[in-house]
Amino acid sequence: MNIITLTTDFGDSDSYVGAIKGVILSINPIATIVDVTHVVPPQDIRTGAFALMGAAPYFPKGTVHVAVVDPGVGSARRPIAIKAFGHYFVGPDNGVLTLALQENLWRRGPTLIRPGSLAINAVQLTNRRFWLPDVSQTFHGRDIFAPIAAHLSSGVPLEILGEPIADYVTLKLKAPREQQGILSGEIIYIDRFGNVISNIPDGQLSERNAVWIEVGERTIKSIRATYAEAAKGELLALISSSGFLELAVRDGNAAQRLGAKVGDEIRVRKQ
Amino acid sequence: MNIITLTTDFGDSDSYVGAIKGVILSINPIATIVDVTHVVPPQDIRTGAFALMGAAPYFPKGTVHVAVVDPGVGSARRPIAIKAFGHYFVGPDNGVLTLALQENLWRRGPTLIRPGSLAINAVQLTNRRFWLPDVSQTFHGRDIFAPIAAHLSSGVPLEILGEPIADYVTLKLKAPREQQGILSGEIIYIDRFGNVISNIPDGQLSERNAVWIEVGERTIKSIRATYAEAAKGELLALISSSGFLELAVRDGNAAQRLGAKVGDEIRVRKQ
Amino acid sequence: MNIITLTTDFGDSDSYVGAIKGVILSINPIATIVDVTHVVPPQDIRTGAFALMGAAPYFPKGTVHVAVVDPGVGSARRPIAIKAFGHYFVGPDNGVLTLALQENLWRRGPTLIRPGSLAINAVQLTNRRFWLPDVSQTFHGRDIFAPIAAHLSSGVPLEILGEPIADYVTLKLKAPREQQGILSGEIIYIDRFGNVISNIPDGQLSERNAVWIEVGERTIKSIRATYAEAAKGELLALISSSGFLELAVRDGNAAQRLGAKVGDEIRVRKQ
Repeated sequence: MNIITLTTDFGDSDSYVGAIKGVILSINPIATIVDVTHVVPPQDIRTGAFALMGAAPYFPKGTVHVAVVDPGVGSARRPIAIKAFGHYFVGPDNGVLTLALQENLWRRGPTLIRPGSLAINAVQLTNRRFWLPDVSQTFHGRDIFAPIAAHLSSGVPLEILGEPIADYVTLKLKAPREQQGILSGEIIYIDRFGNVISNIPDGQLSERNAVWIEVGERTIKSIRATYAEAAKGELLALISSSGFLELAVRDGNAAQRLGAKVGDEIRVRKQ
Repeated sequence: MNIITLTTDFGDSDSYVGAIKGVILSINPIATIVDVTHVVPPQDIRTGAFALMGAAPYFPKGTVHVAVVDPGVGSARRPIAIKAFGHYFVGPDNGVLTLALQENLWRRGPTLIRPGSLAINAVQLTNRRFWLPDVSQTFHGRDIFAPIAAHLSSGVPLEILGEPIADYVTLKLKAPREQQGILSGEIIYIDRFGNVISNIPDGQLSERNAVWIEVGERTIKSIRATYAEAAKGELLALISSSGFLELAVRDGNAAQRLGAKVGDEIRVRKQ
Repeated sequence: MNIITLTTDFGDSDSYVGAIKGVILSINPIATIVDVTHVVPPQDIRTGAFALMGAAPYFPKGTVHVAVVDPGVGSARRPIAIKAFGHYFVGPDNGVLTLALQENLWRRGPTLIRPGSLAINAVQLTNRRFWLPDVSQTFHGRDIFAPIAAHLSSGVPLEILGEPIADYVTLKLKAPREQQGILSGEIIYIDRFGNVISNIPDGQLSERNAVWIEVGERTIKSIRATYAEAAKGELLALISSSGFLELAVRDGNAAQRLGAKVGDEIRVRKQ
């Protein structure tokens, strides 16, 4: 398998992403390189992790996912590679890789991959033979992570890239709390359309037509199947394509309408 | 042929485009995926259609073009696929695919493709065997259009993807009107450089040196062959690379200079 | 070798880049096309040249680099192609290709390519057999440079594309001046993170711990090995990943902090 995905905060105007791709293609000229995004806000590890999480489970087994949001580049933070669900993950050990490791993402309906095994193997990258000969202190994306990804995509086994570790940094989505019949979650992402995505999973919303959803001063009184069920301009709730409770405005921008931001509370109560 | 182009309003910061590419590569791992653009203004069907129209005729026969600007996702609007000029077009039945179907685009000078036949075949996508197993109500780009494109690029014939239809939604460029020797057109696009592109085709401008072009309060008194014929900062008219009358400012921004916007009138009168 | 890189000012919203890729794939369907960047500020030749310079040396031998920032399109400026360091460079003869031709870039530590020969061959593109049949006056990226790049990537030799020339326009980085022990350079680039990159190469900074760096009213008293050596929010100097003196703010934006812009002076004096 020769597919490598890239998720970074390097932007789209500098030559950094080009250099990374050049390094990959110098080692594996038949690699298929796919950009997830390069406009993660600078050094925003959680947003990078969230982008990777949304895309990775849709790629075929054997894909190598590189994520570089790396404020600690050059410090003691470890460069790592992880094998999980038949995929590889390469980047700094700061959590950017690990939101994507949540098992439920890989088992959800739309997911193509049904892992045969749930073993997760991780190594600290220490074998400099698989890095560029000279490693800068400021651009491990080019000098360590790109060559490692290229070698993995060429069939080099994970185990010879470094020493096994088990204590890599793990990000998880905060789980919603349930108290006195009220489910309390929070906004975890706002997308380009202004759709507001919460951490409340589909599975916790069994009674879709008998709930009130509260966000700030607003109440929404049911969960729709689709944007198109609402009138133009109407605020609605539905299940996002990633399987979470989402607030949207039909043909509009819910985040602007609500003045909502990541971290704001969303409550679901039974009617 | 394994080439698939993507034209969407999904933006470049979310994981939506990455997920679409993952789905495609899971079905056809050797697909070559080309981004036309992902920053169509949210739900702006016409701008998406215009981007596809500008790029599609330059691709080789057999290319599959996916365009997803889809405000009606989840509603009764049909998912469709079209075969025309030896190319495939996949997306929602809202017109986003059909500006590109105008025959003259495929016969213009720079065009590489000389269609042997002008038959256009369309199907409503109904055969769920070629979709993802679970289809969300909000993201048909990932769940229907991406797998359909991957299957088409792998050689699956159009006919088995659904039922033939002839009544798909058709967008066309508004034709300029001619009255008392005055040709009246309108601005249909403003590009990154601020170049102002009209719907007046090259072919209707036979006498290039004997016309006055009027836009707002301004008059331009000839059509140049190239930007470089004008002085720096000069407003000029010429034929755009897509074959339409274009207004530009040499080394500057004509749209800003003119305060022009899409829909504004442009008149051409004989001197 | 079938790798082609693209560096342009065509932006990411219009169909221009898509059309270029379609032309390339129509001639060489197995080309691997890599975007360096398309958001060079309109007609900013130097910024385009700088992006190409940062990426090109990391690609494998045989790569074809297309750079189109072309305010003179349609004028007497020549279309050219250059072979150097085992790579090909295609674009307008206005300097956009030639910052990348500086030999030291290709010999630096992280560089993968060790050229066997330093001969640089250039041709003016005159053999229209390798262009699109109809060439517009406004879009040579699509009509000349894309097909030339596709043919080069398919193995067509440089020599048959046109007439040899030696007088192509050459951009160079301004060298820093040394006077009375003070090294005077300038800011040549500000990246997405607000890192400020100068034209003072690593090699001229032998005594890293015994220098004062002056920029505007600020003085920085040493050169660090890495961002992480500084405290959060601290202004620091270090060597950029491209091998030049760089000013940065740990987890912050140095250009904003300093009010710095391209062209501003940076001085290094011995303590």
